[in-house]
Amino acid sequence: MIVLIAKYHVKPGNVAAVLGHLREMSPKVAASEPGCRQYQVAQSNDNENLLVLVEHYVDEAALAAHREMPHFKDIIEGKVVPLLDKREREILTLQIG
Amino acid sequence: MIVLIAKYHVKPGNVAAVLGHLREMSPKVAASEPGCRQYQVAQSNDNENLLVLVEHYVDEAALAAHREMPHFKDIIEGKVVPLLDKREREILTLQIG
Repeated sequence: MIVLIAKYHVKPGNVAAVLGHLREMSPKVAASEPGCRQYQVAQSNDNENLLVLVEHYVDEAALAAHREMPHFKDIIEGKVVPLLDKREREILTLQIG
Repeated sequence: MIVLIAKYHVKPGNVAAVLGHLREMSPKVAASEPGCRQYQVAQSNDNENLLVLVEHYVDEAALAAHREMPHFKDIIEGKVVPLLDKREREILTLQIG
Protein backbone atom coordinates (compact mmCIF):
# COMPACT_ATOMS: atom_id res chain seq x y z
CA MET A 1 0.00 0.00 0.00
CA ILE A 2 1.29 3.44 -0.91
CA VAL A 3 0.95 6.16 1.72
CA LEU A 4 0.87 9.79 0.70
CA ILE A 5 1.42 12.30 3.49
CA ALA A 6 0.66 15.80 2.25
CA LYS A 7 1.25 18.89 4.36
CA TYR A 8 -0.89 21.87 3.47
CA HIS A 9 0.38 25.16 4.89
CA VAL A 10 -2.79 27.26 4.63
CA LYS A 11 -2.70 31.02 4.18
CA PRO A 12 -3.85 32.50 7.52
CA GLY A 13 -7.60 33.07 7.65
CA ASN A 14 -8.41 30.34 5.14
CA VAL A 15 -8.31 27.12 7.12
CA ALA A 16 -12.09 26.83 7.53
CA ALA A 17 -12.53 27.28 3.79
CA VAL A 18 -9.89 24.66 2.99
CA LEU A 19 -11.43 22.19 5.43
CA GLY A 20 -14.80 22.82 3.82
CA HIS A 21 -13.38 22.00 0.39
CA LEU A 22 -11.71 18.85 1.75
CA ARG A 23 -15.03 17.76 3.32
CA GLU A 24 -16.51 18.07 -0.14
CA MET A 25 -13.57 16.10 -1.61
CA SER A 26 -13.64 13.16 0.79
CA PRO A 27 -16.98 11.54 -0.23
CA LYS A 28 -16.13 11.98 -3.91
CA VAL A 29 -12.88 10.06 -3.39
CA ALA A 30 -14.73 7.35 -1.47
CA ALA A 31 -17.43 7.08 -4.14
CA SER A 32 -15.27 6.98 -7.25
CA GLU A 33 -11.77 5.79 -6.30
CA PRO A 34 -11.77 2.16 -5.17
CA GLY A 35 -7.97 2.27 -5.19
CA CYS A 36 -7.95 4.89 -2.42
CA ARG A 37 -8.36 3.04 0.87
CA GLN A 38 -7.89 5.91 3.30
CA TYR A 39 -8.37 9.68 3.07
CA GLN A 40 -7.75 11.38 6.40
CA VAL A 41 -7.23 15.04 7.19
CA ALA A 42 -5.82 16.24 10.52
CA GLN A 43 -5.08 19.72 11.83
CA SER A 44 -1.96 20.44 13.88
CA ASN A 45 -2.62 21.32 17.52
CA ASP A 46 0.36 23.71 17.46
CA ASN A 47 -0.42 25.47 14.20
CA GLU A 48 -4.05 25.77 13.11
CA ASN A 49 -2.91 26.63 9.59
CA LEU A 50 -1.15 23.29 9.10
CA LEU A 51 -3.28 20.45 7.72
CA VAL A 52 -1.87 16.97 7.16
CA LEU A 53 -3.54 14.54 4.76
CA VAL A 54 -2.79 10.84 5.13
CA GLU A 55 -3.96 8.94 2.06
CA HIS A 56 -3.58 5.25 1.17
CA TYR A 57 -3.54 3.91 -2.40
CA VAL A 58 -3.37 0.30 -3.45
CA ASP A 59 -0.65 1.05 -6.04
CA GLU A 60 1.10 3.77 -8.04
CA ALA A 61 -1.62 3.65 -10.70
CA ALA A 62 -4.32 4.45 -8.12
CA LEU A 63 -2.29 7.40 -6.84
CA ALA A 64 -1.72 8.67 -10.38
CA ALA A 65 -5.43 8.22 -11.18
CA HIS A 66 -6.36 10.28 -8.09
CA ARG A 67 -4.52 13.27 -9.50
CA GLU A 68 -6.40 12.97 -12.79
CA MET A 69 -9.90 12.87 -11.27
CA PRO A 70 -12.24 15.81 -12.02
CA HIS A 71 -12.75 16.39 -8.28
CA PHE A 72 -8.97 16.62 -7.78
CA LYS A 73 -8.63 19.19 -10.53
CA ASP A 74 -11.74 21.17 -9.52
CA ILE A 75 -11.43 21.08 -5.74
CA ILE A 76 -7.73 20.59 -4.93
CA GLU A 77 -6.07 22.38 -7.82
CA GLY A 78 -8.89 24.86 -8.41
CA LYS A 79 -10.04 25.80 -4.91
CA VAL A 80 -7.58 24.55 -2.30
CA VAL A 81 -4.15 25.22 -3.80
CA PRO A 82 -4.82 28.98 -4.25
CA LEU A 83 -5.43 29.14 -0.47
CA LEU A 84 -2.10 27.53 0.43
CA ASP A 85 1.26 29.10 1.09
CA LYS A 86 3.02 25.81 0.49
CA ARG A 87 2.37 22.10 -0.12
CA GLU A 88 4.79 19.31 0.83
CA ARG A 89 4.42 15.68 -0.22
CA GLU A 90 6.04 12.52 1.08
CA ILE A 91 5.51 9.09 -0.50
CA LEU A 92 5.87 6.04 1.71
CA THR A 93 5.06 2.35 1.75
CA LEU A 94 2.82 0.94 4.45
CA GLN A 95 4.67 -1.64 6.55
CA ILE A 96 2.30 -2.12 9.50
CA GLY A 97 -1.37 -1.32 9.90
CA MET B 1 -9.67 11.99 17.74
CA ILE B 2 -6.04 12.80 18.46
CA VAL B 3 -3.53 11.98 15.74
CA LEU B 4 0.12 11.41 16.62
CA ILE B 5 2.53 11.49 13.71
CA ALA B 6 5.94 10.29 14.85
CA LYS B 7 8.99 10.35 12.59
CA TYR B 8 11.68 7.84 13.44
CA HIS B 9 15.04 8.57 11.85
CA VAL B 10 16.68 5.15 12.15
CA LYS B 11 20.43 4.72 12.46
CA PRO B 12 21.60 3.25 9.12
CA GLY B 13 21.64 -0.54 9.13
CA ASN B 14 18.93 -0.87 11.78
CA VAL B 15 15.67 -0.39 9.93
CA ALA B 16 14.82 -4.11 9.71
CA ALA B 17 15.39 -4.45 13.45
CA VAL B 18 13.21 -1.44 14.22
CA LEU B 19 10.43 -2.71 11.96
CA GLY B 20 10.66 -6.07 13.71
CA HIS B 21 10.21 -4.41 17.09
CA LEU B 22 7.26 -2.36 15.79
CA ARG B 23 5.66 -5.54 14.41
CA GLU B 24 5.90 -6.92 17.93
CA MET B 25 4.44 -3.68 19.33
CA SER B 26 1.41 -3.42 17.06
CA PRO B 27 -0.62 -6.45 18.30
CA LYS B 28 0.11 -5.52 21.92
CA VAL B 29 -1.36 -2.07 21.32
CA ALA B 30 -4.39 -3.58 19.60
CA ALA B 31 -4.91 -6.10 22.41
CA SER B 32 -4.56 -3.82 25.41
CA GLU B 33 -5.30 -0.24 24.36
CA PRO B 34 -8.95 0.23 23.38
CA GLY B 35 -8.29 3.99 23.21
CA CYS B 36 -5.83 3.51 20.34
CA ARG B 37 -7.86 3.24 17.16
CA GLN B 38 -5.07 3.20 14.58
CA TYR B 39 -1.41 2.20 14.68
CA GLN B 40 0.20 2.42 11.27
CA VAL B 41 3.87 2.41 10.30
CA ALA B 42 5.10 3.49 6.87
CA GLN B 43 8.58 3.68 5.38
CA SER B 44 9.65 6.57 3.17
CA ASN B 45 10.25 5.66 -0.47
CA ASP B 46 13.03 8.27 -0.64
CA ASN B 47 14.83 7.36 2.58
CA GLU B 48 14.66 3.78 3.80
CA ASN B 49 15.82 4.93 7.24
CA LEU B 50 12.78 7.16 7.78
CA LEU B 51 9.74 5.51 9.38
CA VAL B 52 6.53 7.42 10.00
CA LEU B 53 4.01 6.21 12.58
CA VAL B 54 0.42 7.47 12.32
CA GLU B 55 -1.47 6.71 15.52
CA HIS B 56 -5.03 7.64 16.55
CA TYR B 57 -6.17 8.01 20.15
CA VAL B 58 -9.67 8.73 21.34
CA ASP B 59 -8.44 11.42 23.76
CA GLU B 60 -5.41 12.84 25.58
CA ALA B 61 -5.79 10.28 28.37
CA ALA B 62 -5.50 7.40 25.88
CA LEU B 63 -2.35 8.93 24.40
CA ALA B 64 -0.85 9.45 27.85
CA ALA B 65 -1.77 5.87 28.83
CA HIS B 66 -0.01 4.54 25.71
CA ARG B 67 3.26 5.99 26.90
CA GLU B 68 2.86 4.30 30.31
CA MET B 69 2.21 0.79 28.96
CA PRO B 70 4.81 -1.90 29.68
CA HIS B 71 5.14 -2.62 25.94
CA PHE B 72 5.87 1.05 25.26
CA LYS B 73 8.59 1.14 27.88
CA ASP B 74 10.06 -2.27 26.95
CA ILE B 75 9.85 -2.09 23.16
CA ILE B 76 9.85 1.59 22.19
CA GLU B 77 11.97 3.10 24.94
CA GLY B 78 14.05 -0.03 25.56
CA LYS B 79 14.66 -1.43 22.08
CA VAL B 80 13.66 1.08 19.40
CA VAL B 81 14.88 4.43 20.72
CA PRO B 82 18.52 3.25 21.04
CA LEU B 83 18.42 2.46 17.29
CA LEU B 84 17.24 5.95 16.31
CA ASP B 85 19.25 9.03 15.44
CA LYS B 86 16.26 11.27 16.10
CA ARG B 87 12.53 11.16 16.86
CA GLU B 88 10.06 13.92 15.93
CA ARG B 89 6.47 14.13 17.14
CA GLU B 90 3.52 16.11 15.90
CA ILE B 91 0.13 16.15 17.64
CA LEU B 92 -2.94 16.85 15.54
CA THR B 93 -6.70 16.58 15.68
CA LEU B 94 -8.55 14.45 13.14
CA GLN B 95 -10.94 16.56 11.06
CA ILE B 96 -11.89 14.18 8.25
CA GLY B 97 -11.63 10.40 8.02
